[in-house]
Amino acid sequence: MATLATLATVREFLATAFPQTKAIVEDIGPMAATVRHPVGFDELRPGGTVSGPVLMATADLALYVAILGTIGIVPLTVTTSLNINFLRKPAADRDIIAVCTLLKVGKTLAVGEVALFSEGISHHVAHAVGTYSIPTPAARP
Amino acid sequence: MATLATLATVREFLATAFPQTKAIVEDIGPMAATVRHPVGFDELRPGGTVSGPVLMATADLALYVAILGTIGIVPLTVTTSLNINFLRKPAADRDIIAVCTLLKVGKTLAVGEVALFSEGISHHVAHAVGTYSIPTPAARP
Amino acid sequence: MATLATLATVREFLATAFPQTKAIVEDIGPMAATVRHPVGFDELRPGGTVSGPVLMATADLALYVAILGTIGIVPLTVTTSLNINFLRKPAADRDIIAVCTLLKVGKTLAVGEVALFSEGISHHVAHAVGTYSIPTPAARP
Amino acid sequence: MATLATLATVREFLATAFPQTKAIVEDIGPMAATVRHPVGFDELRPGGTVSGPVLMATADLALYVAILGTIGIVPLTVTTSLNINFLRKPAADRDIIAVCTLLKVGKTLAVGEVALFSEGISHHVAHAVGTYSIPTPAARP
Repeated sequence: MATLATLATVREFLATAFPQTKAIVEDIGPMAATVRHPVGFDELRPGGTVSGPVLMATADLALYVAILGTIGIVPLTVTTSLNINFLRKPAADRDIIAVCTLLKVGKTLAVGEVALFSEGISHHVAHAVGTYSIPTPAARP
Repeated sequence: MATLATLATVREFLATAFPQTKAIVEDIGPMAATVRHPVGFDELRPGGTVSGPVLMATADLALYVAILGTIGIVPLTVTTSLNINFLRKPAADRDIIAVCTLLKVGKTLAVGEVALFSEGISHHVAHAVGTYSIPTPAARP
Repeated sequence: MATLATLATVREFLATAFPQTKAIVEDIGPMAATVRHPVGFDELRPGGTVSGPVLMATADLALYVAILGTIGIVPLTVTTSLNINFLRKPAADRDIIAVCTLLKVGKTLAVGEVALFSEGISHHVAHAVGTYSIPTPAARP
Repeated sequence: MATLATLATVREFLATAFPQTKAIVEDIGPMAATVRHPVGFDELRPGGTVSGPVLMATADLALYVAILGTIGIVPLTVTTSLNINFLRKPAADRDIIAVCTLLKVGKTLAVGEVALFSEGISHHVAHAVGTYSIPTPAARP
């Protein structure tokens, strides 16, 4: 499946629609995306590690932009479920890198998995699987 | 099972250990907790609804404080998995209320479920199940 | 929400459509169902406990019949996801009882949770959350 | 990580410990395993497709044997959670093939993902992620 939105288009959309997010879309590919979340004070928790919600938010965003890259910019595409396993303590001084691979993009539902890493370290820090609902063309604004 | 940390103790711990969080612990009960997440600009996403990551973070925190209430303040208790289903669009102008009920608190693992609501509306906006790993006494600082 | 299929109707449908299942539908209520799975040689695994797949199958069936009770007999309603946590070792000599509560029944998606017990013992042996896809009336045979 | 139990050893263990299972272990690799589940009358459900519980049981077994291959035969290793997404309707006349890749094998917990296919068809029919608890050496019989 070809991508319908380029990296530049997805980045421009995010800057407008999600001005709050710190995460950076690094790459958009066919049925795939890579997202980086910078790690600083706001992302840390006791024990000197990255908080779980930062990993969840990054996984969720990686799924979202992989889907937008594949189907084009459909803003009302929304998460219906996310399952995440935390596998190893992320490094406190490295960005989080999320690599999403879509498993299915149907007419109304997309499912993908996300491998999360501390940049430069090859073992997963977490692994997520998420489902998005895609609005039918009639339901789009 | 009795609670080992009171509401005041848990709140004091959170204020020190998680100064970033906006969420407020409303109640701690035996095997249970209620958490409120205020909703404002930072919590909204396109379509005028609360972002998924806010719901995930609130569910995660509700589990964490329910466990701390039950076993006492063990800061290195960490999430090992979270599964969340998004059920209805949360209201943009109401706080999120998360009600956690623990299903099991073992020696090394605790599991609980969380019902998430827009304040004052009775239907769930999301439902989560999460697992936390409790460090053995020997592994605590 | 009223039930659209009675206990007798659901049982009759299952006997025809799923002649392989050993499980028995005990009750159908509004947005709810209770299912029993008898436990014998086929259900046990090493260590004298009920196998995980028996618990998963019983949870899945409890969701299915709770949905059929609520929306009527729509056979092509299919599971889209199931998440299960195993909490305690089930007794080898007691039936499994699954109590399903639906969290949402929409036009195309239903979500519910299932508490699983060894009959007569009050602690959960497992807890599941599942999602079913409901075919649109146009897609039904 | 090397495998500690060979394909022959794992098959012999399963034949003794799980005489009920129809599934066949096809391959055991480092942090990986492939399992086949034959599909016949018992595995089908209305609409001419393989039942969800068969896919769940096959995913669960693929995780189990991948872990046994990696850590050696530790029978009391048990599933603590399984999350499965059903992606496409499996073919009624093809065996199910489950390919498991472990993401982490720790001292007390192992996590892996499983891709499920109808034999000879390249798109996933389902995708699962599961967690197993490994008993400490002291807790083994």
